[in-house]
Amino acid sequence: MSGRSPSTRSSDRARPDVAVVGAGPIGLAIAWRCAARGLRVVVHDPAPGSGASAVAAGMLSPVAEAYFGEHELTSLLLASAARWPAFAAELTEATGVEVGYRTEGTLMVGLTGDDLAEARRLWAYQQGLGLPVTPLRPTELRDREPALAPRVRGGALAPTDHQVDPRLLVPALRTAAQRAGAVLVAQAVHHLADVDAQVIVVAAGCGAAALTGLPVRPVKGQILRLRAPGGVAPGFRHVIRGYADGEPIYLVPRVDGEVVLGATVEERTDTSVTAGAVLRLLRAGVDLLPELAEYDLVEAVAGLRPGTPDNAPILGPLPGRPDVLAATGHHRHGIVLTPVTADLIADLVTTGVPDPLLAPFRPDRFLADLVDGGGPDHTMEGERWS
Amino acid sequence: MSGRSPSTRSSDRARPDVAVVGAGPIGLAIAWRCAARGLRVVVHDPAPGSGASAVAAGMLSPVAEAYFGEHELTSLLLASAARWPAFAAELTEATGVEVGYRTEGTLMVGLTGDDLAEARRLWAYQQGLGLPVTPLRPTELRDREPALAPRVRGGALAPTDHQVDPRLLVPALRTAAQRAGAVLVAQAVHHLADVDAQVIVVAAGCGAAALTGLPVRPVKGQILRLRAPGGVAPGFRHVIRGYADGEPIYLVPRVDGEVVLGATVEERTDTSVTAGAVLRLLRAGVDLLPELAEYDLVEAVAGLRPGTPDNAPILGPLPGRPDVLAATGHHRHGIVLTPVTADLIADLVTTGVPDPLLAPFRPDRFLADLVDGGGPDHTMEGERWS
Repeated sequence: MSGRSPSTRSSDRARPDVAVVGAGPIGLAIAWRCAARGLRVVVHDPAPGSGASAVAAGMLSPVAEAYFGEHELTSLLLASAARWPAFAAELTEATGVEVGYRTEGTLMVGLTGDDLAEARRLWAYQQGLGLPVTPLRPTELRDREPALAPRVRGGALAPTDHQVDPRLLVPALRTAAQRAGAVLVAQAVHHLADVDAQVIVVAAGCGAAALTGLPVRPVKGQILRLRAPGGVAPGFRHVIRGYADGEPIYLVPRVDGEVVLGATVEERTDTSVTAGAVLRLLRAGVDLLPELAEYDLVEAVAGLRPGTPDNAPILGPLPGRPDVLAATGHHRHGIVLTPVTADLIADLVTTGVPDPLLAPFRPDRFLADLVDGGGPDHTMEGERWS
Repeated sequence: MSGRSPSTRSSDRARPDVAVVGAGPIGLAIAWRCAARGLRVVVHDPAPGSGASAVAAGMLSPVAEAYFGEHELTSLLLASAARWPAFAAELTEATGVEVGYRTEGTLMVGLTGDDLAEARRLWAYQQGLGLPVTPLRPTELRDREPALAPRVRGGALAPTDHQVDPRLLVPALRTAAQRAGAVLVAQAVHHLADVDAQVIVVAAGCGAAALTGLPVRPVKGQILRLRAPGGVAPGFRHVIRGYADGEPIYLVPRVDGEVVLGATVEERTDTSVTAGAVLRLLRAGVDLLPELAEYDLVEAVAGLRPGTPDNAPILGPLPGRPDVLAATGHHRHGIVLTPVTADLIADLVTTGVPDPLLAPFRPDRFLADLVDGGGPDHTMEGERWS
């Protein structure tokens, strides 16, 4: 065999156990977990890490993201956030790469009286769920972050809401998956019929709609990357989430001086950066943290989140296709949900039995949208679902 | 000679009549004018067109730029603007390139009552100089530009203030200079002693300070480039200059959909784009012309203008060095002053006699700053002037 080139060897390999479509954090983490269990894994993506994760801020915020009427999603977010410390440590052990996991916690603030009233309503809901949200007196708030504008009316601390850096995470996951034996193929998949494997995992973000007919739609988000001048760390340590004159934004500081300022949520399918969005983000950011005005603006970029009708991910077998597992629709929660998604999908591949945690997120919850229920040989089509 | 490569031929050429240091619009236009008169011209620049002109908006606004106490500069601006139609036509004839010369005129507007009061004081001054400034009633203003915000309190028209596109201009000038016989050498000049020519023209923008000791300092300007969505032209035709809550900005529409929104004026030497500047520009721009919020933000960039102590350019022989002509310090006026600078410097090179128009702009007006007057062999140094 020594006379054969490596590129022809793969065609001689046995049929893969698992083909993962999509090499974002979700797909790569699933590939890593499956390969680590001894499965033969192939990952298909023409441009790994080029989707929503390239724009994501990396907040791990199950508490601050706990919204009215989304109990099941909140449970999944909490379960995944709880796995993050071990997941990050294991990833660093496997690759030698630190992924920017930081535990300073998240400050939630309101700029005006109206903003604070809106925030307090949400904090009360979150406290009602038993989540760790501690309202702070103005002096306590400023003791924690003296850089906050004097105008900021009030805030609360979510100490268990942490952060990670997606631009460190994705290359680390890729290395981990490959070291565990997964093979990356830099090719797009246009039809599931083109993929030959025991199990196909569709982790293609917005691309899942065309492949499966699932009701995944792009939700545009614009973010800015700022940088503290002089190569120093930003003048604040917590992730800051705030309402500023009705505008909800977040500020995520990195040790290298970067600050991610986001994000718009727009029902649009383009990735243009617009003057109005940049204006709204900068105005709200500078209103909350005046020193940002002196920061360099180093990047303005838009991405498309994979949204779903109920804002929750779609995890599990397609109706009538037990060999095709969806792992998509993570919307604004892809980074925080990476560990739990990877673990539970790998379990499902291995055992064939879904974890009870997955029950609320099964693809067949959208069966009612189907004009025509799928049978074993049925290939779902986009228009049936949308 | 056929066995020699082109690159070695130049060393065999006769000593150049004129060496121009700097291939921005000023340097290239001088080279064009000199070469067209039959002089042997070499232009030195490691990166032609990469200085202030790459960031310039291209307003030809002698009227709107007529400020208190700058009579002589205003005269020169008017003289140069008057040359622009023929200059643009000649350039297009020489190169086949249109440089975006547009004659819709400039609207000057004030957003608030305070802004309008400030603007009216300046318009009265400009009218007092006999310049064409026509105050408009609000209905007249909106008839001309319906896209202006309803909040805009008032405005005036400067019909003779036109525009050109610097990013079309510089390549056209380069082509014109080369077709006329000028040779471009992609090399930096660090010392005038390294340049061998009958006459040296220093058109190096901010770089003139280190070469000549003249008091030219960088004045930072940040600008944004927006683009109307859908590939259509912007929803306004005039150049718009306005005060918006005290912030002076301009908006320059191009036929291809681009809008240049500028500019900050900062005593800084870096070229960072800062969050605060982008915020101020966008806020003022959107306040004056709300539809800009829907435009794409395609570029944010900073440049360094060559400023002088009296805000006027430095044109003519260095004290004690009649063979070295300065053509620098054009500050915010480099594009509008290109034709008159090129013509008068080319005249001076040819005849040795300065045009009376140049008198107020001679380098020796800064002689008082010299610790030690320059003699024939004296090389001026920066610290003496600054």
